[in-house]
Amino acid sequence: MVIITDVVLRGLGTDILVAAGTSEAEADWAAECLVLSNLKGVDSHGVQQLPGYVKAIQDGFLRPGAEVKLLKERAATSFYDGGWGYGYSIANKVMEATIEKAKNAGIAYSGIQNIHHIGRVGRWAEMALEENMIGIASQPGGVYTAPWGGIDRKLAIAPIAFAVPTDKYPPIVIDMSLGPIAGGRTAILALRSMKVPLGWYVDDEGKPSNDPKLFNSGKGAQLPLGQTGLGYKGMALSMMIETLTGPLLGLIATPGTQPFRRRGVFLGAIDIEAFTEIEVFKKSVDSMISDLKSSRLAEGFDEILVPGEPEWREEKRRKRDGIYLDDSIYDRICETAKKLGLQPDTYKVRPGKLEIKHPSYTLKQKY
Amino acid sequence: MVIITDVVLRGLGTDILVAAGTSEAEADWAAECLVLSNLKGVDSHGVQQLPGYVKAIQDGFLRPGAEVKLLKERAATSFYDGGWGYGYSIANKVMEATIEKAKNAGIAYSGIQNIHHIGRVGRWAEMALEENMIGIASQPGGVYTAPWGGIDRKLAIAPIAFAVPTDKYPPIVIDMSLGPIAGGRTAILALRSMKVPLGWYVDDEGKPSNDPKLFNSGKGAQLPLGQTGLGYKGMALSMMIETLTGPLLGLIATPGTQPFRRRGVFLGAIDIEAFTEIEVFKKSVDSMISDLKSSRLAEGFDEILVPGEPEWREEKRRKRDGIYLDDSIYDRICETAKKLGLQPDTYKVRPGKLEIKHPSYTLKQKY
Repeated sequence: MVIITDVVLRGLGTDILVAAGTSEAEADWAAECLVLSNLKGVDSHGVQQLPGYVKAIQDGFLRPGAEVKLLKERAATSFYDGGWGYGYSIANKVMEATIEKAKNAGIAYSGIQNIHHIGRVGRWAEMALEENMIGIASQPGGVYTAPWGGIDRKLAIAPIAFAVPTDKYPPIVIDMSLGPIAGGRTAILALRSMKVPLGWYVDDEGKPSNDPKLFNSGKGAQLPLGQTGLGYKGMALSMMIETLTGPLLGLIATPGTQPFRRRGVFLGAIDIEAFTEIEVFKKSVDSMISDLKSSRLAEGFDEILVPGEPEWREEKRRKRDGIYLDDSIYDRICETAKKLGLQPDTYKVRPGKLEIKHPSYTLKQKY
Repeated sequence: MVIITDVVLRGLGTDILVAAGTSEAEADWAAECLVLSNLKGVDSHGVQQLPGYVKAIQDGFLRPGAEVKLLKERAATSFYDGGWGYGYSIANKVMEATIEKAKNAGIAYSGIQNIHHIGRVGRWAEMALEENMIGIASQPGGVYTAPWGGIDRKLAIAPIAFAVPTDKYPPIVIDMSLGPIAGGRTAILALRSMKVPLGWYVDDEGKPSNDPKLFNSGKGAQLPLGQTGLGYKGMALSMMIETLTGPLLGLIATPGTQPFRRRGVFLGAIDIEAFTEIEVFKKSVDSMISDLKSSRLAEGFDEILVPGEPEWREEKRRKRDGIYLDDSIYDRICETAKKLGLQPDTYKVRPGKLEIKHPSYTLKQKY
């Protein structure tokens, strides 16, 4: 484990992407988004993605500098082609336009086809907060989940984000996959040889598995979200997101299609004032939060946290203490950097030891 | 258990609501919606609601004939006051207007405050299918679910519907609560002394409970959707719906507020052609469905069903064979009818026996 400050890590990330053929400005923006994920404790979507991005540039699947093109437009909808550019640049531009549109139409909804990884979806929903709007973002993500009643990987993991402005509390930022666990998080748990509760994965024969390593090696599947007997709900939720990010964006999700090629994105914004005064809304959300927090606690819990709160705390902590990277993730990043002619050992890191007792980065879990 | 045809049941329902002070046309529409729920196997939202509706009329919480009023409007949003009228009449009118709006704006989104029960939310999302659109509908429903880490009833059960046009398959109609189980379904399971898997309910001390009877008596809470360690995802989903149906519609969800009074509704429609040709879209959705159905099966399953398929099959079966009503539900309806001066024994029913082996009406479950 090494510890590295967000500033140094962002510099290293920028230099790697520039060396791989990205403009300084675009590389810096992508690195900033990646490091923000690490700061928030969402390491699955942090700098561990860098080697993959460099490979994608080299393979032609990620095209730095690609311009986003508007294909179709109505009063409240826009449909874009991203030209396989950086998801970070494109999502930023499109979300800005979506917010502007929502100011007039009340709600706005944009779809983007042919776009590379947009990272932590919460990043784009959060943009709406600055304008006192509700922000929404989603993409299908990897195809990891079995349908209800099945055992093969068929459903996208379906990350979704939903950001809500508040009054005194930190904003609500829902940012999660609708399947049990994101691919990048499985990878990290596998690396650390950690186990998860039964009910998340099945092995290749459909038997319960608690082993991220097995899943990470390409075997078995995740079960859809829902406690015993309720997996059809999780299946339905994934299908919702797949419909909006696949077929709606003109992508025919034929069997055998590469998950990568199925990756569309949608971004949305709701102008609260099309319905209710912003101050009434914010107070009302605060009241919902304080009501939730007033619940008696379940055994093993110290407090009720609302979505976004753990990340908000983690960000403050990591800004101060630095970001922990697993040795093998750090090594892979350094290897990528070296191949591009950089000297990664000139970027200051220090050794560290991270005590993790549960497989969730941010939310206390008991099992 | 009695068996009653949908036609007779609709007649009985209409007569009860007319006798309680509803116009013939509005009563017939409400009865049609209720009976359609029974036909689809969603008995939780069927005629068992009738006694409650009559009481609501008598108490002034449901106002037959109330006119819906447009409060605010933008190019893609509308905000209505329902005047505590029948949810069935209002949702129908508002969804029609929402679909019209989506034809221009690409997407349209409507909120309704002060509206009585809209029944099965799928009913309103399905309206979009006739216009080759995606339909969305939601309302908070009862406050039944504990927050992640808590044990008190704090979160709305959050039913959501999402209807998607298809090519050769029956349309996808997602229609489910985002908590483990709807209140009306718990009531029926309690009546039948059925048990559910552990993980759905906790008792008043937060200990696991498998007993719908306990929950139905007002004790304990439901746990949020998600297998062990993942309940924070279900909590987030409920909060999403609560935000959209509560604070966004100007309802301050203060602790202690009656769930009834928190009931706002949203309805939405997406015009597929604002993005993709309808035929490409439908073929693409079909391809997603056939891919899901091609999964190897989990133990105990005969096939993979997609959302809407069980209800579609059940509707055909019950149209032919009739609708089963539990004796105590039938008795309560008759009692209500008698109090209103009707003679319920003149409506033809026959005795029946329904074999139910699992607590889900529509989806096979194993535990």
